[in-house]
Amino acid sequence: MAKEITARAENYSQWYNDIVKKAGLADNSAVRGCMVIKPLGYGIWENMRNQLDKMFKDTGHVNAYFPLFIPKSFLSKEAKHVEGFAKECAVVTHHRLMNDPNGDGVVVDPSSKLEEELIVRPTSETIIWNTYRDWIQSYRDLPLLINQWANVVRWEMRTRPFLRTAEFLWQEGHTAHATREEAIEEAEQMHEVYARFAEDYMAMPVIKGAKTANERFAGAEETFTIEALMQDGKALQAGTSHFLGQNFAKAFDVKFADSNNKEEYVWATSWGVSTRLVGGLIMTHSDDEGLVIPPRLAPTQVVIVPIPKPNEAIIEVAEKLAEQLKGAGVRVKIDRDKKKRPGFKFAQYEMEGVPIRVGIGMRDLEKNQVEIARRDTKEKTSVALEGLDRYITDLLITIQDNLLQKAKDYRTEHTSETTDFEEFKHILENKGGFIKAHWDGTTATELKIKELTKASIRCIPNDEEPSDGKCILTGNDSMQKVIFAKAY
Amino acid sequence: MAKEITARAENYSQWYNDIVKKAGLADNSAVRGCMVIKPLGYGIWENMRNQLDKMFKDTGHVNAYFPLFIPKSFLSKEAKHVEGFAKECAVVTHHRLMNDPNGDGVVVDPSSKLEEELIVRPTSETIIWNTYRDWIQSYRDLPLLINQWANVVRWEMRTRPFLRTAEFLWQEGHTAHATREEAIEEAEQMHEVYARFAEDYMAMPVIKGAKTANERFAGAEETFTIEALMQDGKALQAGTSHFLGQNFAKAFDVKFADSNNKEEYVWATSWGVSTRLVGGLIMTHSDDEGLVIPPRLAPTQVVIVPIPKPNEAIIEVAEKLAEQLKGAGVRVKIDRDKKKRPGFKFAQYEMEGVPIRVGIGMRDLEKNQVEIARRDTKEKTSVALEGLDRYITDLLITIQDNLLQKAKDYRTEHTSETTDFEEFKHILENKGGFIKAHWDGTTATELKIKELTKASIRCIPNDEEPSDGKCILTGNDSMQKVIFAKAY
Repeated sequence: MAKEITARAENYSQWYNDIVKKAGLADNSAVRGCMVIKPLGYGIWENMRNQLDKMFKDTGHVNAYFPLFIPKSFLSKEAKHVEGFAKECAVVTHHRLMNDPNGDGVVVDPSSKLEEELIVRPTSETIIWNTYRDWIQSYRDLPLLINQWANVVRWEMRTRPFLRTAEFLWQEGHTAHATREEAIEEAEQMHEVYARFAEDYMAMPVIKGAKTANERFAGAEETFTIEALMQDGKALQAGTSHFLGQNFAKAFDVKFADSNNKEEYVWATSWGVSTRLVGGLIMTHSDDEGLVIPPRLAPTQVVIVPIPKPNEAIIEVAEKLAEQLKGAGVRVKIDRDKKKRPGFKFAQYEMEGVPIRVGIGMRDLEKNQVEIARRDTKEKTSVALEGLDRYITDLLITIQDNLLQKAKDYRTEHTSETTDFEEFKHILENKGGFIKAHWDGTTATELKIKELTKASIRCIPNDEEPSDGKCILTGNDSMQKVIFAKAY
Repeated sequence: MAKEITARAENYSQWYNDIVKKAGLADNSAVRGCMVIKPLGYGIWENMRNQLDKMFKDTGHVNAYFPLFIPKSFLSKEAKHVEGFAKECAVVTHHRLMNDPNGDGVVVDPSSKLEEELIVRPTSETIIWNTYRDWIQSYRDLPLLINQWANVVRWEMRTRPFLRTAEFLWQEGHTAHATREEAIEEAEQMHEVYARFAEDYMAMPVIKGAKTANERFAGAEETFTIEALMQDGKALQAGTSHFLGQNFAKAFDVKFADSNNKEEYVWATSWGVSTRLVGGLIMTHSDDEGLVIPPRLAPTQVVIVPIPKPNEAIIEVAEKLAEQLKGAGVRVKIDRDKKKRPGFKFAQYEMEGVPIRVGIGMRDLEKNQVEIARRDTKEKTSVALEGLDRYITDLLITIQDNLLQKAKDYRTEHTSETTDFEEFKHILENKGGFIKAHWDGTTATELKIKELTKASIRCIPNDEEPSDGKCILTGNDSMQKVIFAKAY
C-alpha cells in the first residue's frame, strides 16, 4: 500500500496529492474546484474546530450565523475591499428552474431573474457590518465579539485540495469596539490564539508577524499573520487577524454614542482560519508511508489490532484496554475485522496516520504484553499489560512533543539570513525555507524581489527588533529585517 | 419589557415574531428570506447540533462534507426528485464581477458565464450519490453511514424566521446499504433517534408515523416523520427519515458486487432535521413573558444576579456557587453588570428563557439563603446556601420533566377523534390540534380534505393498530386511522 505514494524527494506536489487521496482525506467533486471532504479529513477539521471554538469562547466570543448571500452592491461599498476581493466569485442571478420545453431536463426560468444579483460570500465583512448598524447604538452595545463557522466561495482558477479550493470551510470572527486600542488588542489577542493553536495542537511552529501593506487583507489597516514552513521549504500562511480601523464602519455607517453621548464610528477586527489548516497539517508531519497526525487532533488516537485476527481472549483484553483509555479521554478503536491480514491493516493505519497502534497476539498475551507501534518514529516496543493505559497516555504526549520538536528543528535548519542578493537567490533555489533579510520598506522593491525570485515577504516578524541595515535588493537604508519565502 | 410582546391569545403569529425579535434569536437580513441567527438562537442550535451529532456517532455514523453547488443536470436525473424539488432554488450563472465601465460600482462580467449553471444545494442526494458511485464497489464498502452538517437554500416565497427561510442550517444523513431490509432498518433507527431527541432534549412530544404517498419526500419510497403540536393547535413536521429504495442508485448508477460477485444497485436512506427545530422549541414552551428553553438545550441554564448590584460579599458567594455548578456540568453565568436595575435584568432573563435565576442579596446572605426563580412556573423560593448546588441540578431536571409533561398534557387535550366530517371541521375551526380519523387511502380524498379544511394528513401513526372503519370524507372503507391537522 505504501508503494502507492510518490516519495517526497521525487515530487512533493504529487506526494501531497497521493496522501490526500490514499489516506481518504478528500476527493475531487463534479463541481470544478470544489472538493468532497471525506470522513477522515472532516474528522481532523472537526477536532480543529472544536478546539478553536473552545479557545474563542474562552476569550469571550459567541457564535452567530449570517446569510450565505451578499447583495452585489454591498461589495463596492468599501473601496479597497472590492479592489482586492470581490472579483472571482459565484454570482446568483436567478431563483427558479423549469422543465425544458424542448426536452426532458431542466432549464433556468428566465422570468426568475433577480433584480439585484447575489454573491456567494467570499468573506462576510460587508453583510455583517450592514447588520451591526442595527445592533450597535451606544457604547453599552460594545464590544461585540462574534464568530461564525461557515462555508465561503472564491472562484479560484488553480485549486488544490485543502490548500486552495473554490469552496472552503472556515471561521470568521468579526468584532466591534469603542476604541482603536481595544480593537488592536483584540486583533493581537486572536493572532496569539492562532499561534498557540498551531503550536500546541497542530504541532506546527509558526512565525508571528505583520503583513506588509501590499500583502494586507483588502480593507485592513493592519494584518497579522502566522506563517508555517512546509517540508518542501515553502511557507504557508496559516491564519490571519486584521485590524480594520473604521473602514467598514464608515462604509456601512455604523456609529455609536459614547459615554458623553458623542457619536463615533466603531472600530473593527476580523480574523479567520480555514480547512487550509488541514493541508498545513499534512505537509508539516506526514512522510512517505502516509499521513502523520499529531495525537491531539487525530480522530483515532489509538487503534488496537488483534493478531492475526480477533478471538475471545484477545477481544477481552482489547475491550478492557479500550475502556480504560476512553476513561482517560483517549479516542480509541478496536479493529474487529476478521478478513484482512494484519500486514494490510498495519499499512492502512500507517497511511491514515493513527498515532499509536497496539498489536495483541496470543503469544504476547502469554507473556502479559502487547506490541506498541509509534506512527511518528515507526518504533515498535513490547510493553507490559500492567499499567499499559498510563504508558499509552504518556506516549501520546511524547509523540505530540516529538512532532513539534521535529518541525521546529526542520524550521531552524531551513531558516537562513543573508545580506547578499546572489546568496539570497542561491538559498531559495537550493535549500528553500525562510530567509531573514533587510528590505527598504517599499512596495516597489517587494514586488521586484517577487518577480525576480518568486519569494514574497511572509511577514515583518514580531520577535525581531528593529535594526539598521541595507536592503537586500536595492541597498537602500532599511530599518528591520523581514521574512522572505516562496509560499503556497 | 414583557409588555413589548403580543399575547399569544391575541395573535399567535405576531407573538412568535415578537419572541424571535425581543429575545434576540434572529434578525431579518438584507437578503430576502434569509435570516441572521443571533447568538442566543445560534447557541440553542449549537446545543441541538452537539447532542444530535453525539447520537449520530453513537449509532455508527461519521461526518463528511460535500459541495455547496450541484450541476444543474444532476437535478433532473431522478425523475420524481426534480418534480418535487428542484424548482425554487438559487442559480449561479457567472463567476466574476468587474468594475462597472459606466460607474463606480461592480457589474457581472458577461464573459464569465458558466457552461453549465450551478444550483445552490436544496438537499444533497444528487451530488452525494454521484460521489458514492466512486466510493462503492463491493459489499465490503457497505454500509456507508455518512452525515453532513450544512447550509441549504430553497427559494421560499413566504418565509418566517426558523420555520421557513430561504437559507437554513441542517444536517442530512445519507446512507448506503447492501439490502432493502438494512436500509429500512436504518431509516427507522434514525426516525427513532429524532423522536428521542425531540422528547428527551427539546421536551417536545412527537407522534411517529409514516407520510402518505402524497406527502413523501421527492424520490423516497417511504418517509417517516415526527410531528409535534404547537400551542396554537397547529402541527409542525419536525424531522423526516426517508427510505429511498434504489431510486438514487439507479439514477446515478451506483452498483456493488455482492459476496457472490453479483452486481446489485445500492439501497439508500436520507434523513434530516434543521434550524426549524428552534422554531418548534419556541412554539412548544414559550409564554407571554418571553422565551422558555428546556434546561438541556439552554445556552445559559442558570444565571446568578446580585441584588441590587454586585459587591464583594455577594460575588464571593456567587463565584463559589458558579464553580460548584460548572463542576457538575451546569452552564452558569454571573451577571456582573453594575448599571442595570434588578427588575430590568429579571425581565431580560425571563425574555431570554434562562431556566433558573438565582438572586443573591445581602439580606439573603445574612440568613444563609438565596432566592431561586423558575422560568417555567415563575415560582420563587428561598433556598438555603447549604446544598444549593444539588438543589439546582435537581431543579434543572424537574424543569425539563415539567416542560415535557406540560407539552404532553397540551397535546392530550388537543388530540381528538371523530367519525363525522362536520365535527371534524368544527374541531379544526374551534379547538385545533391533532384529529384521528379514518381515511380511505386515496390521494384524491386527502387533497379534497385539505382543500375543504386546510388540514393535511400529518402521518399514519406507528402506534395505531389497523382497524376497519369508514373514511371521514367519502364514507368509503378505511383500514386505519390517520392523524390530521393544520400544519406549519
